[in-house]
Amino acid sequence: MKKILLEDHEIPKQWYNILPDLPSPLEPPLDPQTNQPMSPEKLKALFPEALIEQEVSDKRWIDIPPEVLDIYSIWRPTPLIRADRLEEFLDTPAKIYYKYEGVSPAGSHKPNTAVAQAYYNAKEGVKRLTTETGAGQWGSSLAFAGQYFGIEIKVYMVKVSYHQKPYRRVLMETWGAKVIPSPSPYTETGKRILEEDPDNPGSLGIAISEAVEEALSREDTHYSLGSVLNHVLLHQTVIGLEAKKQLEKVGQYPDIVIGSAGGGSNFAGLSLPFVMDKLEGSKNPRFIAVEPSSCPTLTKGRYEYDFGDTAGMTPLMKMHTLGHDFIPPSIHAGGLRYHGMAPIISKLYEEKIIEAVAVPQTAIFKAAVDFARTEGIIPAPESAHAVRAAIDEALRCRETGEEKVILFNLSGHGLLDLSAYQQYLEGKLTD
Amino acid sequence: MKKILLEDHEIPKQWYNILPDLPSPLEPPLDPQTNQPMSPEKLKALFPEALIEQEVSDKRWIDIPPEVLDIYSIWRPTPLIRADRLEEFLDTPAKIYYKYEGVSPAGSHKPNTAVAQAYYNAKEGVKRLTTETGAGQWGSSLAFAGQYFGIEIKVYMVKVSYHQKPYRRVLMETWGAKVIPSPSPYTETGKRILEEDPDNPGSLGIAISEAVEEALSREDTHYSLGSVLNHVLLHQTVIGLEAKKQLEKVGQYPDIVIGSAGGGSNFAGLSLPFVMDKLEGSKNPRFIAVEPSSCPTLTKGRYEYDFGDTAGMTPLMKMHTLGHDFIPPSIHAGGLRYHGMAPIISKLYEEKIIEAVAVPQTAIFKAAVDFARTEGIIPAPESAHAVRAAIDEALRCRETGEEKVILFNLSGHGLLDLSAYQQYLEGKLTD
Repeated sequence: MKKILLEDHEIPKQWYNILPDLPSPLEPPLDPQTNQPMSPEKLKALFPEALIEQEVSDKRWIDIPPEVLDIYSIWRPTPLIRADRLEEFLDTPAKIYYKYEGVSPAGSHKPNTAVAQAYYNAKEGVKRLTTETGAGQWGSSLAFAGQYFGIEIKVYMVKVSYHQKPYRRVLMETWGAKVIPSPSPYTETGKRILEEDPDNPGSLGIAISEAVEEALSREDTHYSLGSVLNHVLLHQTVIGLEAKKQLEKVGQYPDIVIGSAGGGSNFAGLSLPFVMDKLEGSKNPRFIAVEPSSCPTLTKGRYEYDFGDTAGMTPLMKMHTLGHDFIPPSIHAGGLRYHGMAPIISKLYEEKIIEAVAVPQTAIFKAAVDFARTEGIIPAPESAHAVRAAIDEALRCRETGEEKVILFNLSGHGLLDLSAYQQYLEGKLTD
Repeated sequence: MKKILLEDHEIPKQWYNILPDLPSPLEPPLDPQTNQPMSPEKLKALFPEALIEQEVSDKRWIDIPPEVLDIYSIWRPTPLIRADRLEEFLDTPAKIYYKYEGVSPAGSHKPNTAVAQAYYNAKEGVKRLTTETGAGQWGSSLAFAGQYFGIEIKVYMVKVSYHQKPYRRVLMETWGAKVIPSPSPYTETGKRILEEDPDNPGSLGIAISEAVEEALSREDTHYSLGSVLNHVLLHQTVIGLEAKKQLEKVGQYPDIVIGSAGGGSNFAGLSLPFVMDKLEGSKNPRFIAVEPSSCPTLTKGRYEYDFGDTAGMTPLMKMHTLGHDFIPPSIHAGGLRYHGMAPIISKLYEEKIIEAVAVPQTAIFKAAVDFARTEGIIPAPESAHAVRAAIDEALRCRETGEEKVILFNLSGHGLLDLSAYQQYLEGKLTD
């Protein structure tokens, strides 16, 4: 059997919260003005209370609201697929399974948290949400989610992407969102930057600062972040919880769990429900977070307190970071170009519960094309990092003869990233 | 329940062949050199024997080969979805269901026949297939299919699309196909046209002529067509057969069945299994084929013998046609820009078993955006024709209070057509 499906009623009804299971508690976010733990009161200007609670909850299981489950059911449960044609191509004894999140209308795993965040904000009467986006994966997911709860979405999109990659912008606008190229003349941060350099191409860090500034300045407006934070990782655990049920149906459990890692939510979404078993001691799989070698946050970053944005407007978080002023080189996996890493993932890496590898861009696209030509699906460049690592592990099994079970997260499709494939196929892509 | 799913083992094992059920036999294709019925012998230069047999078969049910079912299982069964949010938005008592074919890796229904055609060709030892493509929906589907059977795919792509819409080209190349801008200097037809006008932007008619010419000139090469022919419509019936099972699961039967119509295979795929019931007399639904008002083949074309291509290299077929020299205006639903219509659909229309409507482009995109903002999925411009007609019928039900069951084919997603949405949202789209 190739696809392993769940029925609608088998969608998990609770998210898994790893916070109470961590070997040591997470360090709290700090208020940059006082260097003291951030007061929940201050966070209320940005986030609804329900999400602030989830951010620090000690409940292991958190109910998914029925309204969220209802929207999830548009594309969830997502398929788990045995990559039998890829296995054959690699001539490996390994069994490769991938969880395919590209079936969501936005084409990635991001709506899992976008829908939840839009719901909790709407429930507390918030009418507007601001956010930032690079190439547009996250912005389009929040645009998709906002329309279901009558929330106006305003997206600060990195200016160079706004002009060079218009398609995800159009996707956001089709779903009714307002998209502004960042830096913009509408915020103090934006104005200051444009005064210094009217041609500033923008960055994720600047866009975050603008989105946060607008949310802080308006009573009816909150801010939404698509990765890094604990509540975002929480919402993504629906991926791993489904995958676990699906593997159970075929009597399997993974030896290796793999996900690409930018801010950490895609890797966390698949792996945390299996990390739970490792922390309990009932199972002992390996976990591999795969990052671009051009933005090696886990493998080369420091583990220390740092800002989430460039301008220093967010709380300080204890995490792996390349420094909040680090500007990653332009690579096609735009969703992985982030200087920091989710505190939960950083902690698990420090505790040696998970591993990380960094891989260069051309090797990623080689894997993506091999995958497309065997399994049929065109991976997003971000997701192709996980494909690369899965192939490498499967090739190792060919050497050793081990029949390992490899599970990875194919977090999105690449139909809006074909210009990157074009460059690769024409031999123009560099590392 | 929103999604109505089938399990893997519920994929239909046979296609439905309507030929023996038609009220009068189809007129045979004619050899343009003799004006006599085309000899199967001559067709063998282009098609494998199995497909030539299917083209005239009097067997009502034709087994789907296990090798084809195996590839189908990558994305089939496809979901049937109750459009409850669209119903609510329209405030209609109608029940709207859509069959969603956009979940295939190529993003449309086209792989249903591409996989079958690649299989039968490979089985008879064919090593290469040529075909034509406009915007690239069909070419990418055949590229996807070819890779599973070791068949080299060569696609003549209308030159203006080759340069202006590179993304589906990259998709084809990612799946290993060779893509040539048409008119090309590699065929006699292409050379002749380029001599007259080196800047000729190409057309589907020219591309067909080039693909056919190459297939006729090489022993190891056949030709493949993505719509119009009887065997193509046959393969697409898997759509309607699944939809029927899915509706049975919720105790429903459609009052109205709707599909967009270019060459006719998408409309036929959903509707023929229900037309069967109407011909038997057991049910009496309405059927609506929706075409662009700029290319109104059924509603304004003549029913007569005509060529399938511009240069007159194909057999003559009895069909609705705007004339083989008709050049449809450039619209965004490129897949519907064809001068002719499948002989089966033309016959059903003449016999008043099905109806047809023609709708202008801006009304189509209005419907597409309303759909995207309620159901979440971005429809392909072609598929949005069916959305438009479904909405119009649902609005009629609001007037009359009738609780009709409306079923339509959402044949593909529009993630590679976002420039068209951009033009619509910026008010730049005209009829």
